[in-house]
Amino acid sequence: MSAYAQLVERFDRLSKIDEALNILHWDMSAMMPTGAAPGRARSLSALKTITHEMITAPEIKQLLDAAEGESLDDWQRANLTGMRRDWVHAAALPARLVQEMTEACSACEMAWRKAKPASDYAAVKPLLAEVLRLTREVAEVKSQALGVSAYDALLDQFEPGGRSAEIDAVFADLSAFLPGFLAEVQAKQAPAPLPPAGPFPIEQQKALGLKIMGVLGFDFEHGRLDVSSHPFCGGNPDDVRITTRYDTADFMRSLLGVIHESGHALYEMGLPEAWRGQPVGRARGMSIHESQSLLMEMQACRSKAFLSYATPVMAEMFGRTGEAGWDAETLYGANVRCNPGFIRVDADEVSYPAHVILRYRLEKTLIAGELELDGLPEAWNQGFEQLLGLKVPDDARGCLQDIHWYDGLFGYFPTYTLGAMTAAQLFDAAQSQLPGLSDSIAQGDFAPLLGWLRTNIHGKASSLSAPDLLTAATGRPLDAAVFKAHLKRRYLPG
Amino acid sequence: MSAYAQLVERFDRLSKIDEALNILHWDMSAMMPTGAAPGRARSLSALKTITHEMITAPEIKQLLDAAEGESLDDWQRANLTGMRRDWVHAAALPARLVQEMTEACSACEMAWRKAKPASDYAAVKPLLAEVLRLTREVAEVKSQALGVSAYDALLDQFEPGGRSAEIDAVFADLSAFLPGFLAEVQAKQAPAPLPPAGPFPIEQQKALGLKIMGVLGFDFEHGRLDVSSHPFCGGNPDDVRITTRYDTADFMRSLLGVIHESGHALYEMGLPEAWRGQPVGRARGMSIHESQSLLMEMQACRSKAFLSYATPVMAEMFGRTGEAGWDAETLYGANVRCNPGFIRVDADEVSYPAHVILRYRLEKTLIAGELELDGLPEAWNQGFEQLLGLKVPDDARGCLQDIHWYDGLFGYFPTYTLGAMTAAQLFDAAQSQLPGLSDSIAQGDFAPLLGWLRTNIHGKASSLSAPDLLTAATGRPLDAAVFKAHLKRRYLPG
Repeated sequence: MSAYAQLVERFDRLSKIDEALNILHWDMSAMMPTGAAPGRARSLSALKTITHEMITAPEIKQLLDAAEGESLDDWQRANLTGMRRDWVHAAALPARLVQEMTEACSACEMAWRKAKPASDYAAVKPLLAEVLRLTREVAEVKSQALGVSAYDALLDQFEPGGRSAEIDAVFADLSAFLPGFLAEVQAKQAPAPLPPAGPFPIEQQKALGLKIMGVLGFDFEHGRLDVSSHPFCGGNPDDVRITTRYDTADFMRSLLGVIHESGHALYEMGLPEAWRGQPVGRARGMSIHESQSLLMEMQACRSKAFLSYATPVMAEMFGRTGEAGWDAETLYGANVRCNPGFIRVDADEVSYPAHVILRYRLEKTLIAGELELDGLPEAWNQGFEQLLGLKVPDDARGCLQDIHWYDGLFGYFPTYTLGAMTAAQLFDAAQSQLPGLSDSIAQGDFAPLLGWLRTNIHGKASSLSAPDLLTAATGRPLDAAVFKAHLKRRYLPG
Repeated sequence: MSAYAQLVERFDRLSKIDEALNILHWDMSAMMPTGAAPGRARSLSALKTITHEMITAPEIKQLLDAAEGESLDDWQRANLTGMRRDWVHAAALPARLVQEMTEACSACEMAWRKAKPASDYAAVKPLLAEVLRLTREVAEVKSQALGVSAYDALLDQFEPGGRSAEIDAVFADLSAFLPGFLAEVQAKQAPAPLPPAGPFPIEQQKALGLKIMGVLGFDFEHGRLDVSSHPFCGGNPDDVRITTRYDTADFMRSLLGVIHESGHALYEMGLPEAWRGQPVGRARGMSIHESQSLLMEMQACRSKAFLSYATPVMAEMFGRTGEAGWDAETLYGANVRCNPGFIRVDADEVSYPAHVILRYRLEKTLIAGELELDGLPEAWNQGFEQLLGLKVPDDARGCLQDIHWYDGLFGYFPTYTLGAMTAAQLFDAAQSQLPGLSDSIAQGDFAPLLGWLRTNIHGKASSLSAPDLLTAATGRPLDAAVFKAHLKRRYLPG
């Protein structure tokens, strides 16, 4: 058996454990009784340790080196690259560091859950300091293994091949544009129309979510919809689990969340079956993944075209057909508003990138050792005022609001806004290449859009880098101009 | 570190994978979308292969031998015995045989799912032949490893230390008793009272199930109730997952099922926390496990005492308070009936053991090679008529009805009736030792019963053998006379 074929077998086996871990993670968020948390954490840790041991076995390195000289086609070559990337990330870390990170993140996250509602940064700071110390250590060893900067080594975990120099360029463009644009939109936008008033029963919201998932192309033979306090898309390509949460006063929030997670799910479901369990068969990275969710939520569905189809469906589902406010124009106006606030997850489409740019700047300086945790709240608040023009009233609405850093996730934040920009560029290209796209969306027909995504993104999995994938689909690399043009069309029309 | 301490670490790690497998099995039955089945089967198989490799690693045998000479207390000694038992069962099987069994059972079970509704035994026979061939091979190698007969080697998988010679003795007693007793009960029992008529909405049935689970002592911080087509109790001691199914025409069937699975769940929840993840900390075996479910379902709750508490609760839940038929006497009469039929899972308490004895006799001859599959339907039908006095009309209602053999489960069936007999003997002892037991049950207070079970069964886990556990709790070994006396009191009263 060739070295490559042996690697395929080993990665296939590793992927089976990952698939189990993915279901266990979903279960933990959507199903597990609270008292089971400590035991589950130990099970997950044991499984992760086993995969770490399997991938860092000495034969893997030998097989990777031997396979380089074998005759491989393009997908196999890309698969070998992905295998080596997995190996480099795993082998860089001693088992001791993996274990310490797991424990530190678990302890810090638990403390954060109490510190956040109390707005008590001081209470969680010592635990965050331990997470940061270990994260810097991880960044340092991965930096050496990958030959990139410490921050880029962390970024590479979520965005394979992503480099901060490129992000700096597009974010500089955006951050120069945003404050002025935000001010102009706020000055000029019309008062928000009143959306239809609730209550909207949860059973009907769920039925509406399932209905719209089906319209988008979600395959219920290979996925489900459940409830969790923080919506996400989990599971595996043949078994995609999305979640939402319901607010009886506001059905649009859950529905747009379902559409967002469905975008993630459709990506997973569209990955090529022939490459299941292999690195090249996975989604390309977090920016492309986020582009798929935001393309559905922000580009395709937060649109007059989609709302002209969906508004009667919604009205009928809630038994409100014919009542005032149940028209596409009102729902569009109510859901396309620029209204800056302190909380990222509540942010509108225009101010969201400013939230991300702030976090990106701060985490780079934290990893580089140019900022320490004593200075984090002040640095946060200064940066926030500069980008969004608002004074942060407390740390609960400041540097305590997101779980990411407290759970050891550094290098993740920029992928949200890279995803938003990528989504705009992909949808722009799809509209050029599919002239009747808006009309089909207005009829609730997502087959043309999904077909285009299957061909240009989903079906290509990780056979191309994220920039090459985007260039192949749109004819050019990531360009902030397309995203800015989208914002201008939507928020400063006419 | 002592050899014993090293083993504790290794078995702890193995248990973490088992805990993951248990949740994945629950998910497969209660949550998983159908299209995910092939991928899930591959994940489970990979995890099982990993545990097989871990437990058959050469060091385990060396550590087991070394630990025998170390100073251990009683629980540690019992734990070491359990470790060796796990090792013997695993090490007896070459990896090749594990793999072949998994594949043969999977293929046979799929064929059985089609063959059963079509009553087409011939269609599944070749696949069952492969399962039987491999099962005989498993039995043979385990027979040599354990130093017991081939059938007992299979039985030992489910009932550690269980031996067919002992089962033969109690089953001979029962099978001499049952046909005459069945005839007498059918001749003498009064006509069944009409139970309250439905429909009983599923939401209310679910609320009733949850309510009664709470009354029995189910801890919702460490467990949940869901729906599956075949009710079961799964998960782990800190995270027990039970399932039921609902029939809007008959709420008692689901409720008694919930009570049955709650009995299993309370056993798991009551296992000693100090021994989590270790062999001695597990439930003792399937006959004791089944005794816990049947003690709750058949002894404690299918009783006038419980129904005098529960009937008003049920009537109120369905908004039927004061209507005819909502009294304990009617519900008791409707649910304590002897009415022999062809299907084991629908059987009443009196005829159930006859179903089990038939299967036990047949599977012993199948494993011994004294019966081949060509003769199975005829042997089934003859044995059925002899024990239950009914002519089997087709194989769907005969030898195709249960999944067990088609899924490679030989040696499991007798534990159902051992469990029923054990349940009767335990409840009899509890009543002697707790004089006010019936009164407390009649008030919906299960604390005395649960406390007794915690002390005498749950908390002892696998520190004693099943016969020693029963003797310690009841003062004598398993005695069919107690079960027969229970049946006589209930079905031939006065």
